[in-house]
Amino acid sequence: MKKIFIPFFAFFIFTLFLSAQEANKEKYYSFIADSIVKSALTEQNGYRLLGELCKIGPRLSGSANSLKAIDWAKEKMKNLGFDSVWLQPVMVPHWERGNVESAVIISSNKYKKKKLSIASLGGSVGTDLIKGITAEVIEIHSWKELSEKKNEVKDKIVFFNIPFDNSFPTTFPAYGKNVGYRVQGASEAAKHGAKGMILRSISSRNDNVPHVGVMHYTDSIPQIPAIAIGIKDADFLSEALNRELKLKLQLKLSCKTLPDAQSYNVIGELKGTEFPNEVIVIGGHFDSWDKGDGAHDDAAGCIQSLEVLDLFKRLHIKPKRTIRCVFFINEENGSRGGIAYGEYAAASNEKHLTAIESDRGAFTPVGFMVDKDSLSFAKISSWGKILERAGIHWVKQGGSGVDVSYIKNAKCLIGYVPDSQRYFDYHHSANDVFSEINPREFELGSAAMAVLVYLIDREGL
Amino acid sequence: MKKIFIPFFAFFIFTLFLSAQEANKEKYYSFIADSIVKSALTEQNGYRLLGELCKIGPRLSGSANSLKAIDWAKEKMKNLGFDSVWLQPVMVPHWERGNVESAVIISSNKYKKKKLSIASLGGSVGTDLIKGITAEVIEIHSWKELSEKKNEVKDKIVFFNIPFDNSFPTTFPAYGKNVGYRVQGASEAAKHGAKGMILRSISSRNDNVPHVGVMHYTDSIPQIPAIAIGIKDADFLSEALNRELKLKLQLKLSCKTLPDAQSYNVIGELKGTEFPNEVIVIGGHFDSWDKGDGAHDDAAGCIQSLEVLDLFKRLHIKPKRTIRCVFFINEENGSRGGIAYGEYAAASNEKHLTAIESDRGAFTPVGFMVDKDSLSFAKISSWGKILERAGIHWVKQGGSGVDVSYIKNAKCLIGYVPDSQRYFDYHHSANDVFSEINPREFELGSAAMAVLVYLIDREGL
Repeated sequence: MKKIFIPFFAFFIFTLFLSAQEANKEKYYSFIADSIVKSALTEQNGYRLLGELCKIGPRLSGSANSLKAIDWAKEKMKNLGFDSVWLQPVMVPHWERGNVESAVIISSNKYKKKKLSIASLGGSVGTDLIKGITAEVIEIHSWKELSEKKNEVKDKIVFFNIPFDNSFPTTFPAYGKNVGYRVQGASEAAKHGAKGMILRSISSRNDNVPHVGVMHYTDSIPQIPAIAIGIKDADFLSEALNRELKLKLQLKLSCKTLPDAQSYNVIGELKGTEFPNEVIVIGGHFDSWDKGDGAHDDAAGCIQSLEVLDLFKRLHIKPKRTIRCVFFINEENGSRGGIAYGEYAAASNEKHLTAIESDRGAFTPVGFMVDKDSLSFAKISSWGKILERAGIHWVKQGGSGVDVSYIKNAKCLIGYVPDSQRYFDYHHSANDVFSEINPREFELGSAAMAVLVYLIDREGL
Repeated sequence: MKKIFIPFFAFFIFTLFLSAQEANKEKYYSFIADSIVKSALTEQNGYRLLGELCKIGPRLSGSANSLKAIDWAKEKMKNLGFDSVWLQPVMVPHWERGNVESAVIISSNKYKKKKLSIASLGGSVGTDLIKGITAEVIEIHSWKELSEKKNEVKDKIVFFNIPFDNSFPTTFPAYGKNVGYRVQGASEAAKHGAKGMILRSISSRNDNVPHVGVMHYTDSIPQIPAIAIGIKDADFLSEALNRELKLKLQLKLSCKTLPDAQSYNVIGELKGTEFPNEVIVIGGHFDSWDKGDGAHDDAAGCIQSLEVLDLFKRLHIKPKRTIRCVFFINEENGSRGGIAYGEYAAASNEKHLTAIESDRGAFTPVGFMVDKDSLSFAKISSWGKILERAGIHWVKQGGSGVDVSYIKNAKCLIGYVPDSQRYFDYHHSANDVFSEINPREFELGSAAMAVLVYLIDREGL
């Protein structure tokens, strides 16, 4: 009896010890999480840096401004005392809007000379600046309708007037439904002889600000100019076309594509004390569209990533693993930064444990999406109660982010998911400025990411 | 064997049937939830009504404006085709700000004539409008400090300068920490002979807009005037006092309390088809402070409640139980509307199943707080997957809301909880206007509440 009893008792004590240890660990991690949240929300260092960055202005790939911002970022990382800071050279596409972009009604009984609120789509060709392009407009609501009306399209400007579908409880599905028209609409219209393309802005806000974004031409199909129109003017144009089918528009656009330009990913890291070769990447994209300041998209994600490292420093937490913040260049129109970093990761001897991306705006945290590795997913899910202290409601399996997706050898990829309700009010438009960032929403995002990085650093994946 | 087998088989089939039925029900409820979300987000009827209501202006209890808004609400409920619409008479406190409120530095080397951004707190007495009150200012940071410095307070204006504590992941705890100074600060200072009280606005936004709110006098203690100051001017005043201890302020306030005034709760309902005597109350408070339009606080909660009924009508859902929308008057400075409805509920033969309150702003849904009944809590929790379709992340046990708390005979009380990050940017201030309402955030709240009401209507509690 005694013989059985002793091992059983020892096992019982050992189990108790383990569970007490687990409980202590959870208590300690909760304390760290609370400290991170408090530091982020009360000190708001990231928010101030975001303000500085946005003052530089937009950061379109290849622009002089983007290089200025890259310099700023590198200096900032050095001043914050990161262990290493470097620039990774990347050649990027270089498209410029120029000073001219106009769409004017020139033939109409009622609306003559009415100037519409428009902006060239990124990558669009321009027009002759004296004559422009003059044509009738045909309104189209779907690919199906374009196909049905393909014989009416020739020599016209195709106006894709597809409203933002508000019926989903989050907004990304609505964006997903319409973005194809922005990217492929010009070539699909040009196939049938169209002379230009107008896209109703992909926007959830009822204003007249055009929302831009990248478009692509399909090889062998003529390249026609493509613009976005503010949604109030999209409604106006639709109504005007109902009254006057033969209404003519004149487009003048100075935009053009220049040769690829030299640019850089900005990278800073804190070296791991125990496993320096194991890397946790955290990042956003540093380029932005040239309307607004790209405050939500994606200065916010970059500065949150930088603040993760800074929070470790402010709280004197020495990471066991290497925590690396990457500002990827050129996500908006080429992903060259993401591709270049992915190549570096593939060639490097380091072990990329995970890469976390923040590219959905500076809104209140909601969750994390974990891509691919189900063991990592299970482990991260088990930290739910600690993550909740920084406002995280769920961990789900699903897509992470564009830039980190090129890091093919990472064990898992993670996307930070904030609330999406207001994102497409700002996205790719002049509305996306620093004054539209709420400091608490932004900082709670930094904190949520920092808590996750801390747990991965301590527990591995 | 056969004898055992048949009942077992029957039981097995019956269990299968039940679980298939449950699965079908969940599928059907999910379909209804999606329809509610879609209708709310795409039609935005509530958002338009909210705009109409906010155009009337603020709705302070007893004001002419509040009566105008009550008329508007009654007519609106009738026009929407509710089965019954009525006004419940309530006498309410009637405090008026008047046209004069100023705080000017009158004795200082450096800052003479500087006018501060202030507003009388609700319930404050006024001052003589020619002479005002002139006194030195003493800055205080806690009750403890007040007690320590009680001998220095006599004949001075006590300036409670207590910053908003941003360290919590949600904002209500910070409000909870400071609100006592607003409510009792004047009497606590007057105990020691103070002549006036200034409160640093309880605000999470870094601007200079004063945030008001109710204050109370303690019987037998002299009533001294009490104001809120914008946080930029609170910082300014603190700095000025550091330089010049003897700096004097002059306050002039025209505010006063008039005799109680006639007012009303506005009530509308859809009659239950099967259990008309079982009532589900849903509501917000209709009065607001007199700065801004009370758009978030709490026009939003009222119109969301109204929209719950309207969504049932728009989707041709006939409720089995009676769904009653109540716009409670006077939550801000007396709760007379809540008390009156509670008395009605206590005396009525109806069975109040539950009462749901929305009074935390028109932000993205997060959860529901369920008060008291743990069986109801368990039942509501079991609907998590369906509620999630309208953006609800959790159901927790906890406090519901001020107005519904007076319905003592309800089986359970429920508080709707949206995201709180921006609430105290607007709360009780001129910032709280319709243009600061995001239509998607607001409408998703209406939808979340409607889905919950639908499930309670179908499944009971």
